[in-house]
Amino acid sequence: MKLRLLIGMTAGLVTLLAGSASLHTEAAAAIDDSNANAITAVLTQQQDAWNRGDIDEFMKGYWNSPELTFAGSSGITKGWQPVLERYRKTYPDRKAMGHLDFSQLEVRSLGQDSAFVLGRWHLQREADELGGVFTLVFQRFPEGWKIVHDHTSADAKKPG
Amino acid sequence: MKLRLLIGMTAGLVTLLAGSASLHTEAAAAIDDSNANAITAVLTQQQDAWNRGDIDEFMKGYWNSPELTFAGSSGITKGWQPVLERYRKTYPDRKAMGHLDFSQLEVRSLGQDSAFVLGRWHLQREADELGGVFTLVFQRFPEGWKIVHDHTSADAKKPG
Repeated sequence: MKLRLLIGMTAGLVTLLAGSASLHTEAAAAIDDSNANAITAVLTQQQDAWNRGDIDEFMKGYWNSPELTFAGSSGITKGWQPVLERYRKTYPDRKAMGHLDFSQLEVRSLGQDSAFVLGRWHLQREADELGGVFTLVFQRFPEGWKIVHDHTSADAKKPG
Repeated sequence: MKLRLLIGMTAGLVTLLAGSASLHTEAAAAIDDSNANAITAVLTQQQDAWNRGDIDEFMKGYWNSPELTFAGSSGITKGWQPVLERYRKTYPDRKAMGHLDFSQLEVRSLGQDSAFVLGRWHLQREADELGGVFTLVFQRFPEGWKIVHDHTSADAKKPG
């Protein structure tokens, strides 16, 4: 019994040391489940709001601050209100908004209260379809996880 | 003297509380100077290496890991080696590499050991010029600050 206890303790210690080492080497570590779920829930809520044509609800995923930033092919838009206006201008009606899908989400931790998400977006419209990738930087606030920076780009047009 | 001391202590306490409150409200706070300088130094080094045609040196700004990611108009490239190969393929010689300039850098803290940088890139070549915005997610390692994720996009072509 003593030997088994010793083996158990040694294994425990090795696990502990391995865990501690991985804190330093695996910088962009997998985020814990509850935070990853909270973050992907924000994106699911955004997707659903978009597909109901509800841009105000969609905007709730973003940090309501003049420091919010959105980067894309038209440069950098700064501030919650200008980001909202950019969406309203680019997608004036349900037809322009089409049907949005997020996929291939990868959530990576950047510490206790920050993370970023890589993913793909796809917009199916009557007249065309668009798609590309996004990088969303998230921070945790008293009211929950919010996007503090969004970089969204479109796939290069395939020739032909 | 006692009153002045009390006023001084109260002012000190208010400053302390205000400082503590701002930790919660100003999530994407300005990063401290030494870290911001270390991060911008990585970018200056990358810019200089690029303009000497030295892609290997340029790559030292990136986290040397299979988890490194690069997002752009060709989707997501994962891993240090594939990112290097993508650069070599897209910019096969000095003529294709042109002259690179970074500008309008904004460094934002995401905690003790992580930050992100927003900025503009501009590439001047004999035949053309290109430009756009980038989002660089940085993490601090024992060997210094490294880019763990790069999202780079080009400005939309202006009509005409």
